[in-house]
Amino acid sequence: MVKKPKAIKTPPSEEELANRLKNVRNKMIIEELDYFVCFDPVNIYYLTNFAFYVHERPFLLIIGRQGPMKFLIPLLEEAHVKDRAIGDLATVNYYEFPSPPGLNWYEKYEELIENDSNVGIEPAMTMEIYQKTPGNKKVSDILDEVRIIKSDYEIGRIVHACKIVSKGHKKLLKMCKPGMAEFGIFQEATSAMTSKIIQDIPKANFKATETTAAVWPPDISHEPHLVPDIFAKMQEGGPHVSIVQAQVDGYGVEVERTFFLGHIPEKAKKPFEIMFNARKIAYDMLKPGEIMSEIDKKVREYISKNGYGDYIIHRTGHGFGITGHEAPYVAEGYDRELEANMVISIEPGIYIPDIGGFRHSDTILITEDSYIKLTKAPETLEDVIIKNN
Amino acid sequence: MVKKPKAIKTPPSEEELANRLKNVRNKMIIEELDYFVCFDPVNIYYLTNFAFYVHERPFLLIIGRQGPMKFLIPLLEEAHVKDRAIGDLATVNYYEFPSPPGLNWYEKYEELIENDSNVGIEPAMTMEIYQKTPGNKKVSDILDEVRIIKSDYEIGRIVHACKIVSKGHKKLLKMCKPGMAEFGIFQEATSAMTSKIIQDIPKANFKATETTAAVWPPDISHEPHLVPDIFAKMQEGGPHVSIVQAQVDGYGVEVERTFFLGHIPEKAKKPFEIMFNARKIAYDMLKPGEIMSEIDKKVREYISKNGYGDYIIHRTGHGFGITGHEAPYVAEGYDRELEANMVISIEPGIYIPDIGGFRHSDTILITEDSYIKLTKAPETLEDVIIKNN
Repeated sequence: MVKKPKAIKTPPSEEELANRLKNVRNKMIIEELDYFVCFDPVNIYYLTNFAFYVHERPFLLIIGRQGPMKFLIPLLEEAHVKDRAIGDLATVNYYEFPSPPGLNWYEKYEELIENDSNVGIEPAMTMEIYQKTPGNKKVSDILDEVRIIKSDYEIGRIVHACKIVSKGHKKLLKMCKPGMAEFGIFQEATSAMTSKIIQDIPKANFKATETTAAVWPPDISHEPHLVPDIFAKMQEGGPHVSIVQAQVDGYGVEVERTFFLGHIPEKAKKPFEIMFNARKIAYDMLKPGEIMSEIDKKVREYISKNGYGDYIIHRTGHGFGITGHEAPYVAEGYDRELEANMVISIEPGIYIPDIGGFRHSDTILITEDSYIKLTKAPETLEDVIIKNN
Repeated sequence: MVKKPKAIKTPPSEEELANRLKNVRNKMIIEELDYFVCFDPVNIYYLTNFAFYVHERPFLLIIGRQGPMKFLIPLLEEAHVKDRAIGDLATVNYYEFPSPPGLNWYEKYEELIENDSNVGIEPAMTMEIYQKTPGNKKVSDILDEVRIIKSDYEIGRIVHACKIVSKGHKKLLKMCKPGMAEFGIFQEATSAMTSKIIQDIPKANFKATETTAAVWPPDISHEPHLVPDIFAKMQEGGPHVSIVQAQVDGYGVEVERTFFLGHIPEKAKKPFEIMFNARKIAYDMLKPGEIMSEIDKKVREYISKNGYGDYIIHRTGHGFGITGHEAPYVAEGYDRELEANMVISIEPGIYIPDIGGFRHSDTILITEDSYIKLTKAPETLEDVIIKNN
């Protein structure tokens, strides 16, 4: 078994960002693009280390075939960009949104791209930006493609983020007793994670940092996308389903568990076992070359064969990176091979009304010949029957 | 002077949502649209009361000329939608993202719109959704237009949200002493607001709720879009600039102040006075019929005439609604009249390196013949010299 890579807590080097840009430019050559324009804040963060929230004032990163990237930004963000951005970047300011004629963002934008050039744009670009983008435009997922395979630096950051959520999950389980309210668990677990993040990374970027912790108590655990009421109470028995997620200074991960307080109800035993085995089927397939849709298919087949096919409502897994939900997808219809240095979740789920939800999720690194589980929390039935007093 | 409207803390009625839909459909008739498609979660929340975060699984709201709206959602969100959505809505599920052929979101989407129909789409729609949208597509800001003028219900919700941020700001000022760290202020002020929100609205939707509180200490207050370091310390003197913002169960507002601890440095006196007077120029113009760009122009002229023209880096104000930053804009280039029931900020700012930042911001309701300030915090120089011991 390969050893878990070391956690990294430092900002990316200029070299790391230059490599990412080089990967993008290599794909631009293949797609015969003279420019690629990023609007998506996730892609801009990936290439510049600068994080922001999208609102009415656009930020646009314009990548040519060579030279510094050009970053079109609102005037009042200049100091913020200078404070956080890393690497070879030329900022171009516009006056304000809206602006008087001649000073609008799109009038500056037009000057940065020649009209007869081939311009790649993201699937996430909005119509408003699209309509003002010069050149022969072509939607391209170059950036998504480049982000799927992680560098050693990114893996180190993800390992660190996994330590944070594992700590948060440990705190969450410790808080869980019958009668304990959702809100208290959220407060304690997210505070524990935030304190640890600040301690590890005093200059953490809070525009790319967020923590969440919640428990779905037994009466709603069969509905994984309901939002639990903040006054909801933990109950004797189960299944409870936990979610602990974080974006830690730019890297998103998760750990989730099905657990029981005091004892496991008889009717929960079989679905727990089937979920547990389905998970093993997926894990046993994790290595480069395996087709992701095949993993999802095998998992669904096993669960269906055991009578719970009607209670599957989501895919087996998804990718992580800057966000906690991105490509690749371990899903029917996603016929792509696993590759080394992908980071994914494995989380087959069964959701049965009147019994509850059954799902464990971990953040997993695909290695040269297998995988490494980066998150840590109790897994076996014995270990998820929690006896807090 | 008109009295401040009463705060409202209850969810919207079906009638309120039906009125919003009627306003959208009236504009669809004028623009000769058979359908309007919403992708922007803010617009979907406005029309359905259902809040969500955008990720890879699309949610699409399809509005025809009559009958229930159709809401295309991922299967696993069905219970969540049923729990929160209000009004005449027909949900259509898709399998998962990605899906096997025939079960993808876009294959369901195609069935909901006839190919020869005229389809309005938002400026915020992404290329990915645009490419899969059937019909003769036309970008239209109908939804933004409808949202600009608030109903009495929305005004009541905004009045309530303003009480929350005013309370948060009071807490923030109380915490501010020389040596106090940013992080402590953030924690205390946001906790005070969150507690009050939960107390007032026990079923508040936390996917549409968020609180922020921060102070820019004197050494960075001239850079309003830098993010203060969490270990930054409050200092004797000033100017400090505070920001307290919240989205309270779906309604975003703000209150911001320039203040001093103990005393005001001599060099800060004139810029504070000019900011204070510029603000009065804007307030004196606030009534229906006034052109918004004219207000910004008058404010800029006054500040420039007094020698600080080079230190203006943003417009005089912006609108509020579901978000804390939206149309209309009190800005040069935005040549539109104020109307009753618009809600805007007034916040002319002056930012001078080595002296600091000067900006007060409030959330303002435009009335039939004037305005009402909905947020409350100290304003005059005398009142913003804080003497905490």
